[in-house]
Amino acid sequence: MSPSFKHKHILGIEDLSSKDITLILDTAKRFKDLFGPPPIRKVPALRNMMVMTAFFEPSTRTKLSFDSAAKRLNADTMAFSASTSSLVKGETLIDTCKNLEAMQPSVIVIRHKSSGAPRFVAENTDVSVLNAGDGWHEHPSQALLDMYTMRENKRSLEGLKVALLGDITHSRVAHSNIFGLTKMGAEVHVSGPSTMIPRDIERLGVVVHKRIQDAVADADVVMLLRIQLERMPKTLFPSNREYFRFFGVTPEIMKLAAKDHILMHPGPINRGVELAYELADGEKSVILDQVTNGIAVRMAMLYLVLGGTIEEEAIT
Amino acid sequence: MSPSFKHKHILGIEDLSSKDITLILDTAKRFKDLFGPPPIRKVPALRNMMVMTAFFEPSTRTKLSFDSAAKRLNADTMAFSASTSSLVKGETLIDTCKNLEAMQPSVIVIRHKSSGAPRFVAENTDVSVLNAGDGWHEHPSQALLDMYTMRENKRSLEGLKVALLGDITHSRVAHSNIFGLTKMGAEVHVSGPSTMIPRDIERLGVVVHKRIQDAVADADVVMLLRIQLERMPKTLFPSNREYFRFFGVTPEIMKLAAKDHILMHPGPINRGVELAYELADGEKSVILDQVTNGIAVRMAMLYLVLGGTIEEEAIT
Amino acid sequence: MSPSFKHKHILGIEDLSSKDITLILDTAKRFKDLFGPPPIRKVPALRNMMVMTAFFEPSTRTKLSFDSAAKRLNADTMAFSASTSSLVKGETLIDTCKNLEAMQPSVIVIRHKSSGAPRFVAENTDVSVLNAGDGWHEHPSQALLDMYTMRENKRSLEGLKVALLGDITHSRVAHSNIFGLTKMGAEVHVSGPSTMIPRDIERLGVVVHKRIQDAVADADVVMLLRIQLERMPKTLFPSNREYFRFFGVTPEIMKLAAKDHILMHPGPINRGVELAYELADGEKSVILDQVTNGIAVRMAMLYLVLGGTIEEEAIT
Repeated sequence: MSPSFKHKHILGIEDLSSKDITLILDTAKRFKDLFGPPPIRKVPALRNMMVMTAFFEPSTRTKLSFDSAAKRLNADTMAFSASTSSLVKGETLIDTCKNLEAMQPSVIVIRHKSSGAPRFVAENTDVSVLNAGDGWHEHPSQALLDMYTMRENKRSLEGLKVALLGDITHSRVAHSNIFGLTKMGAEVHVSGPSTMIPRDIERLGVVVHKRIQDAVADADVVMLLRIQLERMPKTLFPSNREYFRFFGVTPEIMKLAAKDHILMHPGPINRGVELAYELADGEKSVILDQVTNGIAVRMAMLYLVLGGTIEEEAIT
Repeated sequence: MSPSFKHKHILGIEDLSSKDITLILDTAKRFKDLFGPPPIRKVPALRNMMVMTAFFEPSTRTKLSFDSAAKRLNADTMAFSASTSSLVKGETLIDTCKNLEAMQPSVIVIRHKSSGAPRFVAENTDVSVLNAGDGWHEHPSQALLDMYTMRENKRSLEGLKVALLGDITHSRVAHSNIFGLTKMGAEVHVSGPSTMIPRDIERLGVVVHKRIQDAVADADVVMLLRIQLERMPKTLFPSNREYFRFFGVTPEIMKLAAKDHILMHPGPINRGVELAYELADGEKSVILDQVTNGIAVRMAMLYLVLGGTIEEEAIT
Repeated sequence: MSPSFKHKHILGIEDLSSKDITLILDTAKRFKDLFGPPPIRKVPALRNMMVMTAFFEPSTRTKLSFDSAAKRLNADTMAFSASTSSLVKGETLIDTCKNLEAMQPSVIVIRHKSSGAPRFVAENTDVSVLNAGDGWHEHPSQALLDMYTMRENKRSLEGLKVALLGDITHSRVAHSNIFGLTKMGAEVHVSGPSTMIPRDIERLGVVVHKRIQDAVADADVVMLLRIQLERMPKTLFPSNREYFRFFGVTPEIMKLAAKDHILMHPGPINRGVELAYELADGEKSVILDQVTNGIAVRMAMLYLVLGGTIEEEAIT
């Protein structure tokens, strides 16, 4: 653990203070400053540290991003993949993770379809755990890269008006962002089909709008969520075309946002479903910056839970 | 090849002398002594050696363990995975392996569902081959880590009473352990459902017991095997519950063992089938030590077939 | 980009001049000269460069070969694999590749089942692209390693008589070789089932023969293609046995070739279908040399698109 970052694990944004979040984003900034044309400028901070990814749910982009982050810090990486694993042989999650721990990784990055799985592992082993997305619960690295991208474009999160549009109920990205943005003093407005907005969501400090137009009005940041068909118990709206007609984001709707707004999406994009085809590539879109920033943010997460300090010369 | 270890391949414990086994375990001890909290203390002995894993049968833990062993020796690794390979295109095993050999790995680590496949490859190519488990035949790295773990807890294998419980017929782990333990002077007692004990097993120098209680009595080591449902031609017992009732290991049975016994299992565990839920985490269990020791033992295997000598300063 | 190699991408042999091809083969020769018994003699030329493989179609050998080439140049590697990816979530190819680009690889090596996919990516992103095989279109690294292997055995490609046998229509290997060999001044003779020879193939400067005997007569190089059952819209010949009877290459047919001919095959081999079992291992076969040469050629491709020059001392 870092002297300035007192967490052994990062399991959710809900656990972090605004000071923790600021430290992660500041550390990520130091790493991002090293990005540029090839060759990669690496940081030897995690040399001979072993970063193990344990993805119990298929994912490529988050895994590649953590992997890339680990390599830029000179860590070794090992990938446990559930599909080819003993899980099919009936082993429990904790037994699997204790086995992984016995291989002595420095940190395990876990993605799991069940909410709470990474915390359950953290509580039942001695290894550092980073949550790379668990069920409908949290996706902290995504929210951190989203906040990083907002700060990169808008300087401060304080007072920012953020519209979060789409399927809030089934989105771990939404949950983590709501926790993070409210802690950082942003104003969060949500909208989506009524079947996809949790009833008590206002408790988290967000404003709910029936029409997405009202959420988007004067927003500094418009963040779309993808329709998570694969995580819905049953289809909650009649068709993609129907969705786009009532909740799809179009250039007309985006005209309601603040003039210098940015458009975000965690990817992968369903073009023509949650947003109009042309918007993803528009000048307001920072969608691909989010991907690049994801590497810097994940470097910071790995670095801080493994004891790095932002002051260390290793970074520069 | 090492001057002290005259084998180019490790295909089975049956081929090794007690002196070979001792050399591997001693070498593994040198590597294990370097284990500790992160960062990893690496040994540069196999720098620029290429360790190729060729797993024709799904496995994660053995593959990760060899991978981790290779990385701790500073070797490069390449993974050939059969599922995405040309095997589906009708290539023979030898053609596939000659192709892998043409990519110039220093050693190939092979797992295959057919007994004898690694030896067949060793005989038909020029590359060093390590058997990572073949059919019902042998799993030498597992038996070596098992013997390492026994020696770590019991100092010597000579005269040790080891109870091997469960499905002996379909277990390559059992076969390799029987070869190794009898060579090292341990007394091996086996027990399990009669349909899972080979008729002529006494020929290998083991004692067969009908009741597991008799095998466990005064045992220094109780080693369970997992019920290998996936390798059985048909189900050989009515149900998991039935199995546990008659052959499951319970705390009551374990009271029959020597007072300072250790409990071992190659994993993954079927809790509530072959052993009572609470035993796996009990104070006698060394199951997770087996996993950690697996890395040290596989380091020794790689190191010795690639010509390392235990005296080399590189280790320390 | 290298000062002497003006291509940012290698998408097909059709785009390369004979001078480009010669530069690649000469560069590969410099790398091949470093091959030998382990340990591997690496070239630090691409240290801290990130080589990303993006295989949208299963393949092991080409991927391992590019991977091995990257590692011998000290590059880092990242593997995007389509099977576990967001493609299932309905993302477009360009969106996927823009996401990969945002992770800042130095070069992306793409295999795709659709002809033209790598070019489409090259035109819609800013990253260097190497085509590792696209549909029926081109497989430039394979043709380059084939030409390398011919030159290694025959000194010059100029005036060489090459017989290309089998399914020309569905073979990206055939297409790339025809482009390359004709550019380099070789004489290309093709033969195969009439349903597998494109009607207008003579336009590319090759001679078509009805009987494979006529193509093989006096050939310096006999290159078989594999029957690409998996890429054919429907079965174009009655059975494997039928194929072997009329188009399978036998020792008798090979007697018609030039006395010092070489026998080539891109692999994986269907023994007993496109060639007699014994020929693959015969003294004329350079099939496994092709595999080894593939690493050297892919090192050259990576090295040159990333700006290396053949004169650099880094190579020696």
